[in-house]
Amino acid sequence: MADTGFQPVSGFDLPRFAGIASFMRLPMIDLDDPRLPRVDIGLIGLPWNAGTTNRPGPRHGPRQVRDMSTMIRAQHGVSGVRPFETVNCADLGDVPPNPADLSDTMDRITQMLTQLRRAGVLPVCVGGDHLCTLPVLRALAADAPLGLIHFDSHTDLFHSYFGGSMYTHGTPFRRAVEEGLLDPARMIQIGIRGTAYDSEDREFAAAQGIRIVTIEELFDRGLKDVMAEARLIAGTGSTYVSYDIDFIDPAYAPGTGTPEVGGPNAFQALQVVRELVGVNIAGADLVEVSPPFDNSGGTAFLAASILFEMLCVIAPALAASRGVD
Amino acid sequence: MADTGFQPVSGFDLPRFAGIASFMRLPMIDLDDPRLPRVDIGLIGLPWNAGTTNRPGPRHGPRQVRDMSTMIRAQHGVSGVRPFETVNCADLGDVPPNPADLSDTMDRITQMLTQLRRAGVLPVCVGGDHLCTLPVLRALAADAPLGLIHFDSHTDLFHSYFGGSMYTHGTPFRRAVEEGLLDPARMIQIGIRGTAYDSEDREFAAAQGIRIVTIEELFDRGLKDVMAEARLIAGTGSTYVSYDIDFIDPAYAPGTGTPEVGGPNAFQALQVVRELVGVNIAGADLVEVSPPFDNSGGTAFLAASILFEMLCVIAPALAASRGVD
Amino acid sequence: MADTGFQPVSGFDLPRFAGIASFMRLPMIDLDDPRLPRVDIGLIGLPWNAGTTNRPGPRHGPRQVRDMSTMIRAQHGVSGVRPFETVNCADLGDVPPNPADLSDTMDRITQMLTQLRRAGVLPVCVGGDHLCTLPVLRALAADAPLGLIHFDSHTDLFHSYFGGSMYTHGTPFRRAVEEGLLDPARMIQIGIRGTAYDSEDREFAAAQGIRIVTIEELFDRGLKDVMAEARLIAGTGSTYVSYDIDFIDPAYAPGTGTPEVGGPNAFQALQVVRELVGVNIAGADLVEVSPPFDNSGGTAFLAASILFEMLCVIAPALAASRGVD
Amino acid sequence: MADTGFQPVSGFDLPRFAGIASFMRLPMIDLDDPRLPRVDIGLIGLPWNAGTTNRPGPRHGPRQVRDMSTMIRAQHGVSGVRPFETVNCADLGDVPPNPADLSDTMDRITQMLTQLRRAGVLPVCVGGDHLCTLPVLRALAADAPLGLIHFDSHTDLFHSYFGGSMYTHGTPFRRAVEEGLLDPARMIQIGIRGTAYDSEDREFAAAQGIRIVTIEELFDRGLKDVMAEARLIAGTGSTYVSYDIDFIDPAYAPGTGTPEVGGPNAFQALQVVRELVGVNIAGADLVEVSPPFDNSGGTAFLAASILFEMLCVIAPALAASRGVD
Amino acid sequence: MADTGFQPVSGFDLPRFAGIASFMRLPMIDLDDPRLPRVDIGLIGLPWNAGTTNRPGPRHGPRQVRDMSTMIRAQHGVSGVRPFETVNCADLGDVPPNPADLSDTMDRITQMLTQLRRAGVLPVCVGGDHLCTLPVLRALAADAPLGLIHFDSHTDLFHSYFGGSMYTHGTPFRRAVEEGLLDPARMIQIGIRGTAYDSEDREFAAAQGIRIVTIEELFDRGLKDVMAEARLIAGTGSTYVSYDIDFIDPAYAPGTGTPEVGGPNAFQALQVVRELVGVNIAGADLVEVSPPFDNSGGTAFLAASILFEMLCVIAPALAASRGVD
Amino acid sequence: MADTGFQPVSGFDLPRFAGIASFMRLPMIDLDDPRLPRVDIGLIGLPWNAGTTNRPGPRHGPRQVRDMSTMIRAQHGVSGVRPFETVNCADLGDVPPNPADLSDTMDRITQMLTQLRRAGVLPVCVGGDHLCTLPVLRALAADAPLGLIHFDSHTDLFHSYFGGSMYTHGTPFRRAVEEGLLDPARMIQIGIRGTAYDSEDREFAAAQGIRIVTIEELFDRGLKDVMAEARLIAGTGSTYVSYDIDFIDPAYAPGTGTPEVGGPNAFQALQVVRELVGVNIAGADLVEVSPPFDNSGGTAFLAASILFEMLCVIAPALAASRGVD
Repeated sequence: MADTGFQPVSGFDLPRFAGIASFMRLPMIDLDDPRLPRVDIGLIGLPWNAGTTNRPGPRHGPRQVRDMSTMIRAQHGVSGVRPFETVNCADLGDVPPNPADLSDTMDRITQMLTQLRRAGVLPVCVGGDHLCTLPVLRALAADAPLGLIHFDSHTDLFHSYFGGSMYTHGTPFRRAVEEGLLDPARMIQIGIRGTAYDSEDREFAAAQGIRIVTIEELFDRGLKDVMAEARLIAGTGSTYVSYDIDFIDPAYAPGTGTPEVGGPNAFQALQVVRELVGVNIAGADLVEVSPPFDNSGGTAFLAASILFEMLCVIAPALAASRGVD
Repeated sequence: MADTGFQPVSGFDLPRFAGIASFMRLPMIDLDDPRLPRVDIGLIGLPWNAGTTNRPGPRHGPRQVRDMSTMIRAQHGVSGVRPFETVNCADLGDVPPNPADLSDTMDRITQMLTQLRRAGVLPVCVGGDHLCTLPVLRALAADAPLGLIHFDSHTDLFHSYFGGSMYTHGTPFRRAVEEGLLDPARMIQIGIRGTAYDSEDREFAAAQGIRIVTIEELFDRGLKDVMAEARLIAGTGSTYVSYDIDFIDPAYAPGTGTPEVGGPNAFQALQVVRELVGVNIAGADLVEVSPPFDNSGGTAFLAASILFEMLCVIAPALAASRGVD
Repeated sequence: MADTGFQPVSGFDLPRFAGIASFMRLPMIDLDDPRLPRVDIGLIGLPWNAGTTNRPGPRHGPRQVRDMSTMIRAQHGVSGVRPFETVNCADLGDVPPNPADLSDTMDRITQMLTQLRRAGVLPVCVGGDHLCTLPVLRALAADAPLGLIHFDSHTDLFHSYFGGSMYTHGTPFRRAVEEGLLDPARMIQIGIRGTAYDSEDREFAAAQGIRIVTIEELFDRGLKDVMAEARLIAGTGSTYVSYDIDFIDPAYAPGTGTPEVGGPNAFQALQVVRELVGVNIAGADLVEVSPPFDNSGGTAFLAASILFEMLCVIAPALAASRGVD
Repeated sequence: MADTGFQPVSGFDLPRFAGIASFMRLPMIDLDDPRLPRVDIGLIGLPWNAGTTNRPGPRHGPRQVRDMSTMIRAQHGVSGVRPFETVNCADLGDVPPNPADLSDTMDRITQMLTQLRRAGVLPVCVGGDHLCTLPVLRALAADAPLGLIHFDSHTDLFHSYFGGSMYTHGTPFRRAVEEGLLDPARMIQIGIRGTAYDSEDREFAAAQGIRIVTIEELFDRGLKDVMAEARLIAGTGSTYVSYDIDFIDPAYAPGTGTPEVGGPNAFQALQVVRELVGVNIAGADLVEVSPPFDNSGGTAFLAASILFEMLCVIAPALAASRGVD
Repeated sequence: MADTGFQPVSGFDLPRFAGIASFMRLPMIDLDDPRLPRVDIGLIGLPWNAGTTNRPGPRHGPRQVRDMSTMIRAQHGVSGVRPFETVNCADLGDVPPNPADLSDTMDRITQMLTQLRRAGVLPVCVGGDHLCTLPVLRALAADAPLGLIHFDSHTDLFHSYFGGSMYTHGTPFRRAVEEGLLDPARMIQIGIRGTAYDSEDREFAAAQGIRIVTIEELFDRGLKDVMAEARLIAGTGSTYVSYDIDFIDPAYAPGTGTPEVGGPNAFQALQVVRELVGVNIAGADLVEVSPPFDNSGGTAFLAASILFEMLCVIAPALAASRGVD
Repeated sequence: MADTGFQPVSGFDLPRFAGIASFMRLPMIDLDDPRLPRVDIGLIGLPWNAGTTNRPGPRHGPRQVRDMSTMIRAQHGVSGVRPFETVNCADLGDVPPNPADLSDTMDRITQMLTQLRRAGVLPVCVGGDHLCTLPVLRALAADAPLGLIHFDSHTDLFHSYFGGSMYTHGTPFRRAVEEGLLDPARMIQIGIRGTAYDSEDREFAAAQGIRIVTIEELFDRGLKDVMAEARLIAGTGSTYVSYDIDFIDPAYAPGTGTPEVGGPNAFQALQVVRELVGVNIAGADLVEVSPPFDNSGGTAFLAASILFEMLCVIAPALAASRGVD
């Protein structure tokens, strides 16, 4: 049972358009706050897009997701889960990026995430571009490699870009495998589609035993069947969930830098998250929301809805594992 | 057979971008017009949003729907129905709201709708927010409670908001049941989804015997199956059809104040209306189109397309029942 | 000299696109915070638009202004004033409105502002529509009527709307004069233009001795000359400054509900504020920013720039009067 | 004194966001209406853009101007003129264009305008692109050439386009002079700027004695001085006023197809109209509003404001000349 | 095997946001270029919309499609086809239209396409409105009628518009059949939906034996089944593929002038193209992208993705037929 | 007299909406083109924004400026200058940036600009963010320091950002002075305004003798007077002109990342360029156009208009100095 001090502001007390926008209207707790040790799940912004190879903007993602997340209420419409009453959730603010120094910023992210891990906080990160995931994994997989369930239209498994640049949003999972942060045998990438320069990423995946599910396979087999396989691949070990908003069709999520047409719709986008029940989730992220390409906020609202679905899966599992409630 | 004086202006005579915009390019007839008694179906605007709890705007809905409805032509593409030749349809203008007085405006709506009912006009209303439905029901159910087929992402069955406010767009059907305007046993709500503050609405529905079909059930069973049940629930008695545009996924209908992701697509949005054939429809509405959140007009065009589908169901039934044609 | 704990977050420490958005990136302090008594100037959001007669939206104003105000830095480009180092400034959050109850919300605003007045906090309010100003004045003028310097395209001096509604955004200053909150002889309204239904407001102004400066007079005489007169009219007594964003031409500030073309440009919009030096300001507001009509944020950024100009006038005067520094 | 039957709907009776949108909320009167002979000034839509050489869209202009003109009230803010009480004004609908036949459409325009001229209606036309002006002039100058006061960034005096096409929005005034519809000695073009292919238009103007005032001259001398010259040039004879919205800087009027940067602001855009007092105006138009390039409606609202200024000049003069009131 | 000189610029050498935008970043080759005879597939812009009956804009289509097509890479995600390495592809520029002369422009299109046909270039055209297809067919079917696989929400089989205009975007296929350019027995139209004025088009189709597949049939039977029928109807003879972007639901492709709600999603929009394998394609087009109605570029990016799918079908077939590689 | 091969495509031959978009519709000439030595003025894109500290996007600038520059014609409206007939102008394409490597990209820019300098091409660069100017200056000032006339709302003279980063768009002129590329005594910065973190930049300027003209001084003295001073400061030596689009008020140029309200209007934005006649210009740039913040293209069109004004100043001077024509 969560503490009363960790409840979101209700729209009946303060209408949803009012008030300073934190993630899900949760209390804002910084790293020096004495309440930090009581936080079970921390929502963290990673406002950084140094890895973006084409259309920039995800550095503005966390703030817009915070804004639109004020439309999220307390209870899941289907399952009735009330995550904020289940475990203590909080908005832990943003990792301060250094826009002019890529490796410094990666270190800052790793450092804050390491501190949270030590404090027993399960992180749910909001990007930022997909390169953000690498320093997060460096913190979470410091002891042992993690499994990965990855929703995306791209594999992000490329070797390098622009004549040798090793750190872009097209390479994080290649690096993570090379660094031993992820166990290839426990990795699955779902929703892959769109054009490519070559097959170098897929060859790497094949060589490493990483499972790739293209959008065609996803639609042919159905989401439930593929997600059953995903749970099997992830197994019982600690697993990271990484969700790139461009997994979803750009009609639903136009606010992103590298869209690929022909993806899942919003219902399916939520459904795959619901199917994560049973996975041993060590952390999660939602990345690549780029406000300049959707200043209506629709993409950010969809992102907030997905984050809520994540919390509805993670919170009960965490409560159970910690003997909370 | 409709009168020739009640035909919409053809795009071949006056291109669709030209001319003053009335609903479907129909003749504009006010309540003092001698032609009023000959009107069978009246399209009425309810430009009012005093019940909106979050993002305002539906007061601008009727005008934008009028504008975009000029792209609608005379004949249904599948069924070949030509509603404007079947019965006399007209644009009866807007109920003049009082933006500063909630109960005064509700009275004005009830009053105009009562007058139309007495004149034998079947009303198809264009909101406005969903609170508009309550005063319409007060007029139409003055003699006996109606059945309800309700498409929405929300139940709008809550007791009150903001510390006791009984009249918001989240409460109209609660009030209507309490006032005896609707027969709970003949009510079905379809498409319900999204987060909630609590289950108070669903408990009320369960206690009253109101049937709620969540989006999950709708997609699992299929629209035709659910609509067959809807027809069964509505039975042969007079039934009101209330269509909240946020029933539809916000990728298709972004112009609304309280979207919930993961809804039906536009094809399905039309399909559920087609499945209303056989229902004894006493009136209908289409609400919650909020132009400030979609000034492209796409949402309003979808609304106009749904309204046309409604007319293609209602007009033949009305003609049959009145022995017209 | 301000406390170090009241400094805005620097863009060099946390880039301006990062972090939770408070006004000017100032510390967020609620009414229970022990730091409250040390606050000199409080920025307060009034997310409420129950008085809006045409296009709604200002309830969303405070949050968008917070967001865009993160682009404001620490020091004025011309005068070199550093307001946040001069006195203690803070974001005091929003007054929680009741969207369904007009008089309840006015009471809430008056109550919070009264509490702040007693705590010695000078309020700078961010609307909300212009009706918000009335309950603020009720708090600030509880003891004696205030002078008013009012920038607007409308006088907001009308008697009533829609058949007798006394409280809309077109009536606050009429009410305030009637209630004895403002001293007509110390009132000036600047920038008045646009069409009107009648001259009832101007006749009231003439009868009361309220000075109205039309846009034509403003441009003919020049801003400095008019502002010199404004200072003379306000005199040495306590004066309220009310700034409606529709004072400015809609090319610069499209995000508002009742624009009138032909207003001042952005440079002039700042200049009139600079000319307030010497006025004994008891409180100020900036109202009518309506995000749904400018989701680019340009209007809100202009509003934030005006608010900073206000702070650069108010902070040094306050420091002097309080013997701070 | 105007008839009571010709008054616009008041925003106090029917809020401005409500009701079917006619120009200025005036009564809609078609050519068969028995009230036609009582109309003094007719607002007429010309939804046609067959002459557009680059970015299309003005065919949608009249409807958007109608929509935004509902924000115009009854009385001028400066002069106090109440045009709708001075003479009978009405919305006469649109000339039905034939989008596929240029000369047929020009004939239709000329025909309707001829009919109105015979009925004693002074026309104020809303385009459409600038080619619309030619067929209007053919109707109004059937007996004798008119003078012209022309606000624009282009001269529209070119000989032909695209290898010999004589009828585009770049040629109407060349044709009108050639056809003897305009008296070159009584023509003035104001605001000319931007790049050109060559000087062919200016050479024609010079040869004919047409006065061209570039934007540089306009700003150097001031609007009042230039307008005094314009009145002198127009003299006492019948004069047509043609106002291309691209006269105004595109920051104020982005919704147009051929913008030229560096034009007047909105205040100046109104001011030049006010300076037409004393001119013997036989008709007027406002053209080139292109909604697809400004679906916020800001350009159309500025156009509506200019149209109201025109009415405030034309109505009193007309009343005087007709001995009305 | 394609020539190295015909490869698109790689995003690794020149990032996708950089460089002058040609279709797919292919070399730009004009008709006088000595490389022309080596071109196998030519991408050609037809920036012309003289046939548009309602909302204009497709004249701007080719440039926006070029811009967004820079996001397309070299290899198909599913099939692995690398069209640019298979045959020589190039951007051949635009046919210069004459916006003021309909038949002159049609002649110019026919003339350029005839020249390309003689040079052995297979054309893939980018409109422009659907009337563009007629002059293309005049060139390609000069010797013998073609088959047609046509994706659209409209049949474009009407006789005439606006009182006799024979050449609009609603008539090209009627004209093409009448002129003997298409073999009705080898024609199929897929996705037809929306309202109509009458059934005149369908009666013509029925009389001629043209197969029409409504959207209902398409969804009921499934895309693969319908496309199998399409291949059967097209047979082994030369067939033209015409793809109107309004085939797709407007949530995915809002940038078009005559949308009809309830169409296929983006995945399905690509899928139907993939199912063209085996058809003897003589040429293809993608029309009705109207940038003013989607300046986000999303519609154009979907169009570019469809064009790439077309190339992935056409290039291997062409290589096989020509014995290339 | 320019070569006929260097003329822009005329809108009479190919309408302005048609054709592949190069700068001003000029011929595209790459560095290997044999025509390169005949180029007098080269327009070069610098699609790079690695120095952007807040809202990203200028990497997309060159392409959007190319697109909108197709609306520019051949001849200046006031002066009658026809720059493309005066000297040979061409679009030389973009410097290929490396988005992942800041110093590599700076080297690439310096290298290409050095090559052009040796080929006798005067460069007019289109950014990209303001850091782009530094590597350009490294090429142009390789032999001797240049003078600088700099239009901007920021000085860009800061020492470093984010804890020591020396290369951002806030530091290029500091670096350029330190590297001896600019002669401080011959530098003037015009239009400076907005908030600042501190005065460190101004202190550097004061110490170095760099002249700063704030917006207040600019408006007080008038543009002509300030520009006379600018010409005096620049003297007869080689001078670089750097134009940041945020010099202009954001109502006119919203498409930029770090706007400051209260700047010059579009007319003034052109006027300052016209006043450069007499300056010995060695190169120029126009930077910080950020398409994601203005996808209407209005900002880019203003940028294109400014570039044309630059050409009208540079081309005649160059022709005179080279004895051309």
